[in-house]
Amino acid sequence: EEEIPEDHPRYQDLLTRHRIEAGVEKGITHLQGMHAEGRGSAFDYLLGEETIPSAAAAERAAAAQLLLAEHPVLSINGNVAALVPGEMVDLAAAVDADLEVNLFNRTPERIDAIAEHLVEHGAEDVKGIEADARIPNLDHKRAKVDSDGIYTADVVVVPLEDGDRAEALEAMGKTEIVIDLNPLSRSPQVAEIPIVDNIIRAVPNMTEQALDLEDETESTLRRIVEDFDREQALAAAEERIRSGQL
Amino acid sequence: EEEIPEDHPRYQDLLTRHRIEAGVEKGITHLQGMHAEGRGSAFDYLLGEETIPSAAAAERAAAAQLLLAEHPVLSINGNVAALVPGEMVDLAAAVDADLEVNLFNRTPERIDAIAEHLVEHGAEDVKGIEADARIPNLDHKRAKVDSDGIYTADVVVVPLEDGDRAEALEAMGKTEIVIDLNPLSRSPQVAEIPIVDNIIRAVPNMTEQALDLEDETESTLRRIVEDFDREQALAAAEERIRSGQL
Repeated sequence: EEEIPEDHPRYQDLLTRHRIEAGVEKGITHLQGMHAEGRGSAFDYLLGEETIPSAAAAERAAAAQLLLAEHPVLSINGNVAALVPGEMVDLAAAVDADLEVNLFNRTPERIDAIAEHLVEHGAEDVKGIEADARIPNLDHKRAKVDSDGIYTADVVVVPLEDGDRAEALEAMGKTEIVIDLNPLSRSPQVAEIPIVDNIIRAVPNMTEQALDLEDETESTLRRIVEDFDREQALAAAEERIRSGQL
Repeated sequence: EEEIPEDHPRYQDLLTRHRIEAGVEKGITHLQGMHAEGRGSAFDYLLGEETIPSAAAAERAAAAQLLLAEHPVLSINGNVAALVPGEMVDLAAAVDADLEVNLFNRTPERIDAIAEHLVEHGAEDVKGIEADARIPNLDHKRAKVDSDGIYTADVVVVPLEDGDRAEALEAMGKTEIVIDLNPLSRSPQVAEIPIVDNIIRAVPNMTEQALDLEDETESTLRRIVEDFDREQALAAAEERIRSGQL
C-alpha cells in the first residue's frame, strides 16, 4: 500500500484494488467480493471518482441519523472489512455504534478472520460471532445476526449489501443507511438514506460530519434528516452516471 | 456450471462469474482478473447484456479480417482462458489462426496452467511459452511474445487487453481486433476493429460469421471490412451505455 504514490491519477482505484486483493489473500474477502468491487469501480469511474454533492448531503444526513439513534449498528462484510476497517472503527466510535460482522458467504473462518482484522484496527468489541437471532424471510445462513446487535438495532449502516438482505432488514422496520455505487440496485432503493459514493470516501466523510454535528440539538439533527431528499439524491446520482466522462 | 439454470434472468452474468472464479482457483486467472471482470459486468449491464447491432457488425468484419489475414493470432490471457477456452479454440480452427498465451502478470506457472487448460479444450498447439521475441516499447515481462506468433502476425485478436500493450501492438503495425466492454478505454480506441460486447457472446458470434463467410471471395471479404465504420460502432456503444436501462 505504501508503494502506491498518492499523486497517481488512479490512486483511489489502485488503493481499492490493492486492499481487496489483500483481503482475499488474508481470507477476509470472498473471491466474489473482488468481482463486486470491480463492478462498483465502473460506476465510480462514471461518477468521476468523487463525492458528488447529493452524496455529501446523504453522508451528513446519515451522520445525523446515527447520532439520533438509540441503538445503531454498522454491518461489516468481507469487502467492508478489507476496504475500510479502521474507518469503520472510527465511525463506530464517533456515533457510539456497534460493529457486527454479517456475511453473505458465511463461514466460521471468515467470521473469525474479519473479527480479528477489526480488532487489529482498533475495535474493542465485535458482534456477529455468536449470531443467535435470525432476520425473518431470509435463508438460514444469510439471516444470522446477534440478538443484541442488528436484530434489535433501530438504525443500521449496511454498506455494499445484497438486495435480499437489505429488503428483509427494511421489512423488519430498520432505518437503513446503504452505501452503494449503483443508485438503481435494490439496496439503495430500499434505504431511507442511500449514499451513492465509494465507501473509501463515504465512511471518513460520515465520521467527519458526525464529529461536526455531535454538539447539535436533537431538533437540529432531526431537521437535517428530514431535509434530506432520497429521491432527489438517487436521481442526481443516476444523472451523473449517465452524463459523466466515460 | 451445470447448477446454473439456463433460464435464470442473470444466467450470463452468473456463468461469467463462475468461470472466472474457477479460473482463479485453477491458477489460470490472476485475482485482478476477477476485478476486471466485475468492471466489465457493469458495462455489460448498461449495454443490456446483449450484442448490440454495431457489435454484431464488428464481429462480422472481424471474421472477414481474420479470413483475409496471412498470419492471424488470437492472444489469450487469464480471463480469456477462463471464460472462453473452447470458444477460442473453435475460432482459431475456423479462421486458421494460432493461439498464443500472453499475460499481463506473467509467471511460468500461469503460462503452463493456461496452455494445459487450452489443450484440455481441444487446442493442438499453443504459442507464447518460449516467448523469444519482444514487443518494442513495453517493459520486459509484458513485452514477451513468440517470434513466429504475435511478433510476426499481421492480424491479432486481443480480447480484454491492457491499453499499453494494445498501443504497442498498434505501433508495430498490427491490425488489431479488440474485444472490450468499455468503448472509451484505450484498447478499443486504438483497434481497427473494436468489438464492444461480452467475450462470451462475441467469440461464438465471430466463429459463426467466419463459417458463414468462408467461401466468399477476397473482394467480398475486403468490402465487409471496408464497410465497417469503427467510429460509428464506438459511438453507438457509448450511446447505448448512456441511455440503457440502469
